[in-house]
Amino acid sequence: MLAYQISVGNELLIGDTVNTNMTWIGQQLTRLGIRTGKAMTVPDDLGSILAALDESMAAAELTILTGGLGPTHDDLTKDALIRFFGVELTRHEPTLTRIRRMFFQRGIPFTVSNEAQADVPTNCTVLDNHHGTAPGMWFEREGRLLVVLPGVPREMKGLMLDAVAPRLEALVGASAIVTRYFQISGIGESTLSDLVIGNLDESLGRDLELAYLPHSHGITLRLTSHAGETEALARVAAHIRTRAAQYIHCETPETELEQTLVDLAIAKGLRLATAESCTGGWVSNLITNVPGSSAMFVGGVVAYENAVKRWMLDVPDSVLLEHGAVSREVALIMAKSVAAKLGADIGLSTTGIAGPTGGTDEKPVGLVWIGFWSKDAHFAVQARFFRDRVLNKERSAKVALEIARRQILGIHGLPYDLKAESA
Amino acid sequence: MLAYQISVGNELLIGDTVNTNMTWIGQQLTRLGIRTGKAMTVPDDLGSILAALDESMAAAELTILTGGLGPTHDDLTKDALIRFFGVELTRHEPTLTRIRRMFFQRGIPFTVSNEAQADVPTNCTVLDNHHGTAPGMWFEREGRLLVVLPGVPREMKGLMLDAVAPRLEALVGASAIVTRYFQISGIGESTLSDLVIGNLDESLGRDLELAYLPHSHGITLRLTSHAGETEALARVAAHIRTRAAQYIHCETPETELEQTLVDLAIAKGLRLATAESCTGGWVSNLITNVPGSSAMFVGGVVAYENAVKRWMLDVPDSVLLEHGAVSREVALIMAKSVAAKLGADIGLSTTGIAGPTGGTDEKPVGLVWIGFWSKDAHFAVQARFFRDRVLNKERSAKVALEIARRQILGIHGLPYDLKAESA
Repeated sequence: MLAYQISVGNELLIGDTVNTNMTWIGQQLTRLGIRTGKAMTVPDDLGSILAALDESMAAAELTILTGGLGPTHDDLTKDALIRFFGVELTRHEPTLTRIRRMFFQRGIPFTVSNEAQADVPTNCTVLDNHHGTAPGMWFEREGRLLVVLPGVPREMKGLMLDAVAPRLEALVGASAIVTRYFQISGIGESTLSDLVIGNLDESLGRDLELAYLPHSHGITLRLTSHAGETEALARVAAHIRTRAAQYIHCETPETELEQTLVDLAIAKGLRLATAESCTGGWVSNLITNVPGSSAMFVGGVVAYENAVKRWMLDVPDSVLLEHGAVSREVALIMAKSVAAKLGADIGLSTTGIAGPTGGTDEKPVGLVWIGFWSKDAHFAVQARFFRDRVLNKERSAKVALEIARRQILGIHGLPYDLKAESA
Repeated sequence: MLAYQISVGNELLIGDTVNTNMTWIGQQLTRLGIRTGKAMTVPDDLGSILAALDESMAAAELTILTGGLGPTHDDLTKDALIRFFGVELTRHEPTLTRIRRMFFQRGIPFTVSNEAQADVPTNCTVLDNHHGTAPGMWFEREGRLLVVLPGVPREMKGLMLDAVAPRLEALVGASAIVTRYFQISGIGESTLSDLVIGNLDESLGRDLELAYLPHSHGITLRLTSHAGETEALARVAAHIRTRAAQYIHCETPETELEQTLVDLAIAKGLRLATAESCTGGWVSNLITNVPGSSAMFVGGVVAYENAVKRWMLDVPDSVLLEHGAVSREVALIMAKSVAAKLGADIGLSTTGIAGPTGGTDEKPVGLVWIGFWSKDAHFAVQARFFRDRVLNKERSAKVALEIARRQILGIHGLPYDLKAESA
């Protein structure tokens, strides 16, 4: 099945809003084995919406249109739909009841402009929106499908997952697409490619694709079979598992490293504490983003000023004077102290020069020491990152989390070929 | 001038990559007074690229196309361009020299496939890419412009700012567009609308637009005059400043609340410390994202477990037992203790039930207490947020930062009409 997407909204064209809906819908369609042939973004303008509908319904078997369904005067999608199909609007009573109840439950007064949200073109099938007021709409004409959804991402996603994807799945049949995900951490893209691809090329082709998806916190390897559960799929997946074993932290889609670390620590009954200087709380924030992390995260100290390093983490003045705050020695003491003081099994520390200023020839911007302490190991590693402050915080945190994962699993060697330096 | 955008790339359509280029280019064009009439995303497919070029060059005076310029077999944009214009490729020697030098400086071997990066259609003006290999290209035909840029965001942005925007500015002349930004914090969208808009409607119209841009950390009000520095613009800006005075934290574009708070604290010579439970380090992370924040941020404690609240922040067992960790009493002690122990002028604390589980009837998921301590004031406020864990952390942090901003400025009243409860 060939699909087109239409996104309606001035805010997308003038650059006020990033069109994440388009990306997310693209993922869903790909998962269903539906190919997206084109995506269009058009302004809140009747002629533009109509022209996009004309083009899309002529070219594609499925059109997914989002946006322009709100209650205000610049929401014109329903006007365009009744003109496009040559029909009228009709009030959909179950939707009106649902919207009234929603307002009542939230204690918000119900106004007349909200009633119009329950008006839909006579030829549509209404899709209940459990996350907002505007209903989704499903149209069929001459064997072609048009799905219209609100532009609010939460509402769009709810409708796609609840109502649209199951209907599409029933139409296109069980997809022959099978996907394996390998979440990779602790290795760069080109090194991974050398390691994994090697002699894989001949196994890949039309039926079996391997995609590298690098992101701020690692790389996702996506292996896709277009011919179901084939022997080639199993063979290549096994090859990847063997070659990249120590770098694969899990095999589920959209799973971050911190989720893996939290699961792992809970499974092993280990508790972790953080002592952060340059990362400023980003490490503890990532960990506490994971539901249930309270079972393995004790707490942390953001030791930004040296006085906090001294007072809360027992870093001696003499060490700060001799080696400086950004040093192996300070990273080691911070990791050990925070674990000891908070009664954790593992202490993780960061101290570095986040930038954009504050570097010297000897200690440039981007220089970071990451410390690890457990009863079995105690070391610090030096990493050199970039001039970008936020990027330096992110990379430092990910290296710290990856070091903890490897230590818990007893993996020999450090991420990114970093070298450990002991006390 | 009317512009269309074309983005080329399978990764955009299958949902592997969010199209942030489109958003950013939209912003740049808007700033130049150029209206974007449509944006299209098409696959790495010759026919699709040609069809998009046909449509765009027929409809718009300016087309900006990004992507498909890399050295691999699936990069087809240059093939499409020579067919579209009916010309040949020619080697651009200055570009070849530039690319060779770039490889040499980075110590990467130069291969033949990279030479082709210097091939351009004979009818184009080459735009030097200082951030990567593929050059930008500028075409003119029958008074219509086509600008072709690499899809790598850093390279695209460099070329837009260095080469494209200045040329466009020279063509469209000094823009009559004048924009004012008001960064708003501590008030919801509908309340702000009631407060600000009121009798504004008659002042607004074709020449003067007011846009509400809500985002996760507040609202940006953007006032745009299409007729230069008019009296109406000045009048409406003054009206907004009067009505929303206490909610406007600054008037520069893209400035986050934490930046304003850091600037303000430094200007007043105040130093701040954080004691975070439910936010898990997100507050200190936001503050330390701001370059120069070390001048006002002392450090913090992430007191996730009660033991850390007891041990590091002197919260007595009796208080934890009587009131629970999520309580006014604990928030108050956390804020006061962290300021006292770290020698800060201001202590900020959070304690709440981030969710998605862990709530009770009395203390549901989303219940958060935020504490503030300075020598002049000491109070806690209760907020009720959502079932979403990360959202609860974000909202709690923003309320905490806004409370600190208001206290430093001596603004009477709390954000979102929250009520202060003292010890």
